[in-house]
Amino acid sequence: MKKLINNPNDVVTDSLKGVALAHPNELDVDLDNHIVYRKQPKDGKVAIISGGGAGHEPLHSGFVGTGMLDAAVCGEVFTSPVPDQIMEATTKVDTGKGVLHIVKNYTGDVMNFEMAAEMAADMENTQVTSVIVEDDVAVQDSLYTAGRRGVGGTLFVEKIAGALAEEGADLDAVTAVAQKAADNTRSYGLALTSCTVPAAGKPTFDLAENEIELGIGIHGEPGRERRELQEANELAAELVKPIISDYDFTGAPVVALLGGMGGTPLSELYLMWGECAKLLEEAGVKVERVLVGNYVTSLDMAGCALSLLKADDELLRLWDAPVVTTGLRWGA
Amino acid sequence: MKKLINNPNDVVTDSLKGVALAHPNELDVDLDNHIVYRKQPKDGKVAIISGGGAGHEPLHSGFVGTGMLDAAVCGEVFTSPVPDQIMEATTKVDTGKGVLHIVKNYTGDVMNFEMAAEMAADMENTQVTSVIVEDDVAVQDSLYTAGRRGVGGTLFVEKIAGALAEEGADLDAVTAVAQKAADNTRSYGLALTSCTVPAAGKPTFDLAENEIELGIGIHGEPGRERRELQEANELAAELVKPIISDYDFTGAPVVALLGGMGGTPLSELYLMWGECAKLLEEAGVKVERVLVGNYVTSLDMAGCALSLLKADDELLRLWDAPVVTTGLRWGA
Repeated sequence: MKKLINNPNDVVTDSLKGVALAHPNELDVDLDNHIVYRKQPKDGKVAIISGGGAGHEPLHSGFVGTGMLDAAVCGEVFTSPVPDQIMEATTKVDTGKGVLHIVKNYTGDVMNFEMAAEMAADMENTQVTSVIVEDDVAVQDSLYTAGRRGVGGTLFVEKIAGALAEEGADLDAVTAVAQKAADNTRSYGLALTSCTVPAAGKPTFDLAENEIELGIGIHGEPGRERRELQEANELAAELVKPIISDYDFTGAPVVALLGGMGGTPLSELYLMWGECAKLLEEAGVKVERVLVGNYVTSLDMAGCALSLLKADDELLRLWDAPVVTTGLRWGA
Repeated sequence: MKKLINNPNDVVTDSLKGVALAHPNELDVDLDNHIVYRKQPKDGKVAIISGGGAGHEPLHSGFVGTGMLDAAVCGEVFTSPVPDQIMEATTKVDTGKGVLHIVKNYTGDVMNFEMAAEMAADMENTQVTSVIVEDDVAVQDSLYTAGRRGVGGTLFVEKIAGALAEEGADLDAVTAVAQKAADNTRSYGLALTSCTVPAAGKPTFDLAENEIELGIGIHGEPGRERRELQEANELAAELVKPIISDYDFTGAPVVALLGGMGGTPLSELYLMWGECAKLLEEAGVKVERVLVGNYVTSLDMAGCALSLLKADDELLRLWDAPVVTTGLRWGA
């Protein structure tokens, strides 16, 4: 294993130390609880928290800031944060208007966020709602999931809910728009290589030199099938097909994310977007906004994923609203 | 070789097609000449062009936009653009106020930008100045260079010159501030793995499983030495030492870039920044601004580089000025 780390057991703490030192004016970092907070919280606003296992950066810690998250709770690599951590974040950011939990659909995450919500309600009278993101069309159940996995589309939900909360909407409205974004999002990914979890010290799975995994999860979970590496135009079809056959993305403005898994250079991600864009146009899908880059990653895995959000005027307006985070920034 | 590409000979064109399709409102892309232009050029402004071999994205094409470059000229992967391409970009962006070329110090780039400048002057009466970036302290001469190589610090020069040009300064002033930024910048990098050039189809060099290369260039050129992989805190010292022993960074505000080489995840880059920040503080270097991420890359190479800019009030003000590009964005 070749990584820029110290002790493999300290990677999350050590990385968060760097986040704190890089962004002292934007972010507060609780190193004991592995929580990243917005430095200038907005008073009287519904608070939004997300989190999960580390290893998907910039998700979630890079999305803390104006117009997106109020806090991100980081577990160990690919491991859910525990209820105490989540409760700490929840009660700390609550301004009295309530807190929305945005949770990727993995059994551990769902359970721990739920327990934290109950604890926060019991102990601090904090009102908590929850939206589960389950956008991955690749598999129905998986190693860590009952139902579909939450992957790249989580970014859409965090951005859109964050924008409405920033405008001053109440908890019901913010929860409803997050749910609407989640319901209208689908994703599908592929891997060229495995990732390597620092504490494990070796690749999670093996792929032959000419082999790829279609429908990969963001923790190296198996996908739908392995096959030979193909050209980008053929691989793009493998990404687009399962998404648009699962949900009708025509007749509405669509927001697209062509996201890298962490180890693939930006030039290849743009190349893949070029191929996907052609196929989406041919299929009558009208893409109005595009994001290309590493946003929801899987450590050093090489590969990419396509996420689509079927928007409407409201969702598109909230997507376009200003966002000022270390990982996503525009309009302000 | 595992890459998300079609024909390895078409990677630059295919990737630029994706750029055009992802950013139709921000960028114009000349696919024949491999030039990325700012969609809304500002009239009566000094124009700034940079470029070089592809494979370092988002440098340079991702830095085209308000407050930075007017055009980026892309050669083939790790290969200088030819004079005709550069001349085409130069004459197209000139508003009559002249054009600054920002050139990384590689023999082919320097020669071709120089020829293009002469051609533009002769044929279109375009006034062109040039600033060479040679910030890499690792080696004095190299495979492709007489003198030091131009690497990550190029971002500082492009950002700062772009900010002054946006304010309406004349060509002499813009050139002078670019030169000042270049003179006050130093960089040093390390690699955990080689990159793989698509047309070559195999890694540029071999590193054993426990081996790293210190002082690596951004094309996989050899550095100062190979040694065993160490912990991040030790590697950080290897980055900081050669930079601060080459130039005195104390007594002034410093801008730092902890940049990834392309294949290293963001969490490791933040971790490395945490280690570098401690060492810089101990050395009396006062870092006022920090950028952590993949900005000046070497395809899929794993590794990172540290770049420092010794600023003053003027350079810091220009660094903070608004920039709206696809790869760097703040303040607007």
